[in-house]
Amino acid sequence: MTQHQIEMTRYLSSFIEELVQAGVKDAVISPGSRSTPLAMLMAEHPTLKIYVDIDERSAGFFALGLAKASHRPVVLLCTSGTAAANYMPAVVEANLSQIPLVVLTSDRPHELRGVGAPQTIDQIHLYGHHVKDFVDMALPEDRPEMLQYAKWHGARAVDLALKAPSGPVHLNFPLRQPLMPILDPSPFSGEEKRHHVHIYLTKETVEKDLLNQIIAVCHGKKGLIVIGDLDKAEGFAEKLVELSLQLGFPVLADPLSQIRSFGKNDIKVIDQYDSLLRIDRVKQAMKADVVIRFGAMPVSKFLSQYLDTLDDARHFVVDPGSSWRDPIKAVTDMIHCEEHVFVEELLTTVDYTQRNTEWYDQWQRLNTLSKATVNKYLQTIEGLDEGKVISELQQHLPNNATLYIGNSMPIRDIDTFFQQTERHIKLYANRGANGIDGNVSTALGMSVVKQPMYALIGDVTFFHDMNGLLMSRTNQLNMTLIVINNNGGGIFSFLPQADSPRHYEQLFGTPTDISIEKATSLYDGNYYGISDWEEFQDALDQSAHDKGLNIIEIKTNRYENVVTHRSVWDNIQEVIGYESL
Amino acid sequence: MTQHQIEMTRYLSSFIEELVQAGVKDAVISPGSRSTPLAMLMAEHPTLKIYVDIDERSAGFFALGLAKASHRPVVLLCTSGTAAANYMPAVVEANLSQIPLVVLTSDRPHELRGVGAPQTIDQIHLYGHHVKDFVDMALPEDRPEMLQYAKWHGARAVDLALKAPSGPVHLNFPLRQPLMPILDPSPFSGEEKRHHVHIYLTKETVEKDLLNQIIAVCHGKKGLIVIGDLDKAEGFAEKLVELSLQLGFPVLADPLSQIRSFGKNDIKVIDQYDSLLRIDRVKQAMKADVVIRFGAMPVSKFLSQYLDTLDDARHFVVDPGSSWRDPIKAVTDMIHCEEHVFVEELLTTVDYTQRNTEWYDQWQRLNTLSKATVNKYLQTIEGLDEGKVISELQQHLPNNATLYIGNSMPIRDIDTFFQQTERHIKLYANRGANGIDGNVSTALGMSVVKQPMYALIGDVTFFHDMNGLLMSRTNQLNMTLIVINNNGGGIFSFLPQADSPRHYEQLFGTPTDISIEKATSLYDGNYYGISDWEEFQDALDQSAHDKGLNIIEIKTNRYENVVTHRSVWDNIQEVIGYESL
Repeated sequence: MTQHQIEMTRYLSSFIEELVQAGVKDAVISPGSRSTPLAMLMAEHPTLKIYVDIDERSAGFFALGLAKASHRPVVLLCTSGTAAANYMPAVVEANLSQIPLVVLTSDRPHELRGVGAPQTIDQIHLYGHHVKDFVDMALPEDRPEMLQYAKWHGARAVDLALKAPSGPVHLNFPLRQPLMPILDPSPFSGEEKRHHVHIYLTKETVEKDLLNQIIAVCHGKKGLIVIGDLDKAEGFAEKLVELSLQLGFPVLADPLSQIRSFGKNDIKVIDQYDSLLRIDRVKQAMKADVVIRFGAMPVSKFLSQYLDTLDDARHFVVDPGSSWRDPIKAVTDMIHCEEHVFVEELLTTVDYTQRNTEWYDQWQRLNTLSKATVNKYLQTIEGLDEGKVISELQQHLPNNATLYIGNSMPIRDIDTFFQQTERHIKLYANRGANGIDGNVSTALGMSVVKQPMYALIGDVTFFHDMNGLLMSRTNQLNMTLIVINNNGGGIFSFLPQADSPRHYEQLFGTPTDISIEKATSLYDGNYYGISDWEEFQDALDQSAHDKGLNIIEIKTNRYENVVTHRSVWDNIQEVIGYESL
Repeated sequence: MTQHQIEMTRYLSSFIEELVQAGVKDAVISPGSRSTPLAMLMAEHPTLKIYVDIDERSAGFFALGLAKASHRPVVLLCTSGTAAANYMPAVVEANLSQIPLVVLTSDRPHELRGVGAPQTIDQIHLYGHHVKDFVDMALPEDRPEMLQYAKWHGARAVDLALKAPSGPVHLNFPLRQPLMPILDPSPFSGEEKRHHVHIYLTKETVEKDLLNQIIAVCHGKKGLIVIGDLDKAEGFAEKLVELSLQLGFPVLADPLSQIRSFGKNDIKVIDQYDSLLRIDRVKQAMKADVVIRFGAMPVSKFLSQYLDTLDDARHFVVDPGSSWRDPIKAVTDMIHCEEHVFVEELLTTVDYTQRNTEWYDQWQRLNTLSKATVNKYLQTIEGLDEGKVISELQQHLPNNATLYIGNSMPIRDIDTFFQQTERHIKLYANRGANGIDGNVSTALGMSVVKQPMYALIGDVTFFHDMNGLLMSRTNQLNMTLIVINNNGGGIFSFLPQADSPRHYEQLFGTPTDISIEKATSLYDGNYYGISDWEEFQDALDQSAHDKGLNIIEIKTNRYENVVTHRSVWDNIQEVIGYESL
């Protein structure tokens, strides 16, 4: 054992111990040589749980899912070279969806950089402005000040990753040969006092007089509470709907707001706005004076377009940290306050008697009409249909289930067809950058924390991250994956290019003709091929008992799908046509 | 007038109006062609005050000083090319010292980038990671959504610049010919409704149970409150010294903490630690168990070294935003809380009876001894002396004066010789990057807000930013500049190289032999050459009545200066030697 190995072991184990002390519980590691000492020391740590994923692109999203579900920073570790470049998609998503990650890349020491050494790329600021912070760490030394340096950066990395807005931080570790750490005795068994950094998570609060100003603005107004992707602690949903009742401001709840399915539905929220706001009469008649918006911008394009028309409205955006999530640039009041604090403070301040009940009731009536129309239509559908899949899931998923929703069509169908329920179902998706990449891995990462775990994705998304399925076998993860297979990119059928057949199938349709059943057997999953709704319910019931990976395939037709969607919206428009607004 | 000019005028005036609505009151502009529309529109704005500075390097620091003194974001505007590169030193300082700046650079339109067009450099991310945010703005258009885009970015820029930790943001404006805006009618006179963004400045607060944990840690301990560069609103100093009394934790107050001179001295703070902690016996005997630190790391190297030896101490760092200002990596508890909130909350929680009075009194006794020794020594000094300049200033500056302190020797002498006073004197310096560049301009920028304004700098620092003096004439600014002229870099005389004559004067001594008197007349200032302390006091009294620029030159000797400083510290060491610790 060389002096270098002793120093390296003490330096890196101090760093890892500090990460754990600061709250890290999970690390996702991809195999490699340069990362050997960090990987072995993480594996050696008594409490740190490690997951090994061969494909770094999948590993990045697996870590993202784990962090998304646990609200804890997850560590990523890979070797040098393009391995690190494979993290980029997940890093970008984490940065935009505010998910805490601590990305560790191993690197050659300085003397081997920029000299044509093998598997050596420029890793300095590799992720550019897509990380909250970058540190090129010092070479390992075990002088007390350098051990302190390593610990300090461990604590700081976790602190910065968590601080609102949460996100990824990147630390690059130059490491020299020999790369084997000293594991006997375990560097973590020692009694040596580890003075680590306590991190105090503080909250942004808004002063009382500002709250009073806001209340004054809301007084008797036609107001809306709009909430997009936001996963707050239990209790927030109850507080928010209570506030909506007090203000007389209906809640337009994006499925990812968790407000459509938090376990109660005695106070109704608006879940039909995506259909309703396609109708010009509704957009004209239901103009709000005040909007209070939380979380990311909602999925619905028609809601965004509607909000964009409210030129005279006061538009409050509550967004902690220094985020400005306002793609329509409608904000008139930017409030960097922690959402839970803001809602509780408003609740204690607002005066019940000020609300505009007429406005509130009108939204409720329109929502009820739309909902009834959708449900009536769905009952008429015999064959397999992408919209009906959603209402089936909403009715038949077990209580306290978690559903990860793939991008492209599934998230939009959820927005249209997933209605408020009294059951508790958590809904998640990668809506930072809206990619179809890494969706399988994200869901599997979540399954470590959330059970029972379900995921709903299309066949192209499934194919793109099929490698991610390996983690379900190597880690005995339990998840039921529902694949809507319309053999290609169904969303493009809704776009103008669908009307011109030239090049369409080659460039947009892109059928893969991949057998979902064979892919399932490749990873030893249980396969369910569905031909009618009864079989779908049976498969859902059965999969609740089958451990491991369950894959339910629902074959649909891209062309019919467009037709059924459009007729649903037409029906709603017709019904609303008889309403006086 | 072309359509382009109309569109450009509406777009840029919307942006400028939004900056003003968000709280900007001052803009520092350097002349140029590409910046013409922004410059003329700012000059046209009814409330925005503009300052024109030919040298962009000085302009950057002038804006920095203005923002430092006003706690408001100041706008910087320059043309394209190297002009923008000249802002770098001030941008770097602003970023590290957390001063809000909105840096606007004009650029060629996209079709003239990277094609060898004149005065065109790559301005994208020009300041790298030294700004909080960068935006390459869209070309001017007056479609409603683009006017909204311009306003939105104006509000966002001010918000990000102010949000803790405050700092500079950079917006790059590509502009096309013709560059003349339309000023008749004034774009700001219109009644057109400007829906602008209200920004709510929120505060980070720490929960009660965490405060109780902190109190528990402090219970009866040997504690210190250490406060570095931190310019809080009136009332903070009173609260802090009250807290120190309650906890029995002496306050080690850096001059830039404003705690040595906030207008009261009934509660004594420790202002001699830089001298005391040079003494090993003191460092050994006075080891603290708990440190609560605010603001930047103090100036004193000996304090840092002492704090670094406290291996077993709990070291609380209170630092809002996501700052980790802890160069010695001593932090054990990182608290991202607004300082004023933290101190007030602690005050309401702490129990008076818990304090360790013995520890508190011992520090007070040592401080009194050191102070007496310094003062006794200074009385013996006949000739002009750099240390004595400080005590003279401390005694003879008018109440409510502001003193800007140059880097290198002056700030260190202030640390050693500026003692707690019952008078209210604000002390400032550029301690983010500690440069001697831009010091004259920073002080002049402050003089716009702070009166009476004084600055104390050395001759090399004076020479480096002599161009900055032009602003005092063009803007009729009132400031008294005290130049300690030891004809070269006096600080190097304290460093090892001073003992080896070879190359010393050429590389470190660097005498300029510049006549301060001639430089003063070049800018029409009033010159005072000082030959004894009586003349110094007269000059100070006289300059209080002379408007405009007053320059007081005090000629000293670099070599004698080292001797006198060292004998002061020797005397203190000797006196403390008789003390039982």
